[in-house]
Amino acid sequence: MDYPIWHPCSQMKDHEVYPIIHIKKAKGVYLYDEKGNSYIDGISSWWVNLFGHSNKRLNNAIKKQLEVLEQVIFAGFTHDRALELSQRLLKIVPKNLKKIFFAEIGSSAVEISLKLSHHYFKNIGIKGKNKFVYLENGYHGETLGALSVMGEPLYKNAYEDILIKNIMVEFPNCYRCPFGKTRNNCDVECFSFMEKTLSSKADCVAGVIVEPLVQFAGGFKMYPSKYLSKLRELTKKLNIHLILDEIATGFGRTGTMFALEQAQIEPDFLCLSKGITSGYLPLSVVLTTDEIYNAFYDDYSKGKNFLHSHSYDGNALACACACETLNIFEDENVLENNKKKYTLMRQLIENYFKDFDFVGEIRHTGFISAIEFVKDKYTKMPIDSSIRFGFKIYRKALEKGVLLRNLGDLIYFLPPYVIDNSQIEQLVESAYFATKEVIDENFC
Amino acid sequence: MDYPIWHPCSQMKDHEVYPIIHIKKAKGVYLYDEKGNSYIDGISSWWVNLFGHSNKRLNNAIKKQLEVLEQVIFAGFTHDRALELSQRLLKIVPKNLKKIFFAEIGSSAVEISLKLSHHYFKNIGIKGKNKFVYLENGYHGETLGALSVMGEPLYKNAYEDILIKNIMVEFPNCYRCPFGKTRNNCDVECFSFMEKTLSSKADCVAGVIVEPLVQFAGGFKMYPSKYLSKLRELTKKLNIHLILDEIATGFGRTGTMFALEQAQIEPDFLCLSKGITSGYLPLSVVLTTDEIYNAFYDDYSKGKNFLHSHSYDGNALACACACETLNIFEDENVLENNKKKYTLMRQLIENYFKDFDFVGEIRHTGFISAIEFVKDKYTKMPIDSSIRFGFKIYRKALEKGVLLRNLGDLIYFLPPYVIDNSQIEQLVESAYFATKEVIDENFC
Repeated sequence: MDYPIWHPCSQMKDHEVYPIIHIKKAKGVYLYDEKGNSYIDGISSWWVNLFGHSNKRLNNAIKKQLEVLEQVIFAGFTHDRALELSQRLLKIVPKNLKKIFFAEIGSSAVEISLKLSHHYFKNIGIKGKNKFVYLENGYHGETLGALSVMGEPLYKNAYEDILIKNIMVEFPNCYRCPFGKTRNNCDVECFSFMEKTLSSKADCVAGVIVEPLVQFAGGFKMYPSKYLSKLRELTKKLNIHLILDEIATGFGRTGTMFALEQAQIEPDFLCLSKGITSGYLPLSVVLTTDEIYNAFYDDYSKGKNFLHSHSYDGNALACACACETLNIFEDENVLENNKKKYTLMRQLIENYFKDFDFVGEIRHTGFISAIEFVKDKYTKMPIDSSIRFGFKIYRKALEKGVLLRNLGDLIYFLPPYVIDNSQIEQLVESAYFATKEVIDENFC
Repeated sequence: MDYPIWHPCSQMKDHEVYPIIHIKKAKGVYLYDEKGNSYIDGISSWWVNLFGHSNKRLNNAIKKQLEVLEQVIFAGFTHDRALELSQRLLKIVPKNLKKIFFAEIGSSAVEISLKLSHHYFKNIGIKGKNKFVYLENGYHGETLGALSVMGEPLYKNAYEDILIKNIMVEFPNCYRCPFGKTRNNCDVECFSFMEKTLSSKADCVAGVIVEPLVQFAGGFKMYPSKYLSKLRELTKKLNIHLILDEIATGFGRTGTMFALEQAQIEPDFLCLSKGITSGYLPLSVVLTTDEIYNAFYDDYSKGKNFLHSHSYDGNALACACACETLNIFEDENVLENNKKKYTLMRQLIENYFKDFDFVGEIRHTGFISAIEFVKDKYTKMPIDSSIRFGFKIYRKALEKGVLLRNLGDLIYFLPPYVIDNSQIEQLVESAYFATKEVIDENFC
């Protein structure tokens, strides 16, 4: 095989059967390949794109910035776009968050939070806070620090021997509730798992990290905001940091600007990335409190400073793009408009998919809908994995001009916010026919 | 303090005395601040910039790409600029390197190499290769996996309790050679440290990671290429991977396109970043062999695939910028022209600094020169760290319109390649006067 690229998150041998799709250009919600096919980008190019590809406003913001400053060292130096972005972000996050640390990518934001949390306790003289608690099924990136709080074994198993050990807690498994509850009659009984772990290990735990409301890569598991408010209350009581990973949930994806608003909580660390630049450029930030910041603020000779850095921290082009992203949110009434759009998307999905025997659960949060397919909707037993049911739907949908990446036997709808009603219809309808064909070919 | 940003690699309290410099724009080698001051960017904005700020050719390449495609999911999808960049990079690296994995930042390239190295041995059925060997004084990034191969305690000490343990080997300390040799009569006797470690631990070591020729963040320690050829020979014999971190050395900085050329070696993994986009945008890649790639290439059901991913892998804007970077290298005879420039820079530095008693060693590799200051050039004893000698030179040089960041009591010259002769003169002359003033103020 002469093809030079080793693609991420892929078994490259799959591409002997399913060639890699060569995209020539993209505009709005559409991707166009070299054969002249178009695809609705139903997953916002891995959950990053907000306002469509090659968006005029964002393009112009970057062009303008190119003439001024593309990048400057961010140690000891700052620039307009980093300052503007910082000030504006601090206005829309919980009031306790006062400082912003720039990183470059989501996983480095997570790594920074873990390092800061541990280092904070050292700096204030509390020893032994060497562990982090994470949820089963959670995903926070794949660098080795981020992998140490990975709750999805698929990404982690091969590396167990080169990872530090942290502490995993059973996740809020609403679809297969171990307490026999449903989403309608639940009082987050499953929080007892977290309570038990934190209460018994508070002395060695620096922080708890979670994706609020939706566990993305772990299969779009969605759980009630009450879990988060209980978690905030308990972590505060036990002197444990709460690290919210809003890398995927942030910037309107869950219906509010940030998912934490739905639980009305103030975290100690908030990690943002992905949509922060509308899917244009890598950028991430960690927002934190004055309490954390002050524990590192001292005379140089005390050695309390946080030395972490990346070459492109505070990249001016990415910051310009992020500022324009916030402008679009303000100017175009995005959150309100999204509500109408995702309400339609939900209705269509429910209507199209409700009668399939293989549909286990359809779940929605904000502008995310997911369908988990099972062998039997009463027993909730999974489909034989060798069938690669979800993967086949993904491939069929592509043939129909729709990009809907699967996670195992789950498919999800997570389009750019600029999608219009007819495109939403096409997205759901194509998914429906793709699913129907896969069922017919494999089970009839 | 109402200032919202927590800057990287900084003690923020220092800025009570030395305010953060607010850059308004940049062009060529110059940075311009809000007060109308200009600074020659003598460190290429943290070792990333090659062809000046707001470079016309690079700006145009990005503007053009904005109209076509800014970003597309890189799992299952590809695009022109990623393909072009891959094909062109594979032509200029050692022939054994056949595949390219896209990451986003330098530290993730390092993390990917570590993961691939360990996972490779698992996939081919060799167990127990759970350790990595690294050099004292080496720097490969600050995410927790990268920190586990960090040889500079300053960045690592606070995190020892949350890091896996790897194996450190004494570095080639040419300035303070433990064998009493000099650069002129050395036969890399210090390689014996590496030989002893690798020979005794080969069964548990997956890979050795080094920065070839120059250890950057560890104080611009420079060592002979023969160390690298010996290392390649030994690692091959012992079935240990050689991971070359050319994140800082790559793209002409050491005089050749890649430092490895000077040792004529073929690594198993080559990490590139920083200069890959001429200092415009975060992008990194890991290049590797077919042998590694093939160990992951199998039927999906075998579970041998490498699942690592980042959202912005293969970012099209960064790839366009990287392709234009390679165009500039080809069109503008960069490596030859650099040689004339850094020859001048070296001469000026030698002439200006040779008579200072505090100059311990002046060292050069390619377009990098560094001056290590000591209390006494005969004993090589360091200057009392509370004086912050190097930091004061950095601050003085800024007042003179020159950005020359220090590392402890070392200052270094690492300008963009577009610097001209008169700017080189200004850079060195300002550094000289800054040094002289700091000496006068602190020692006379």
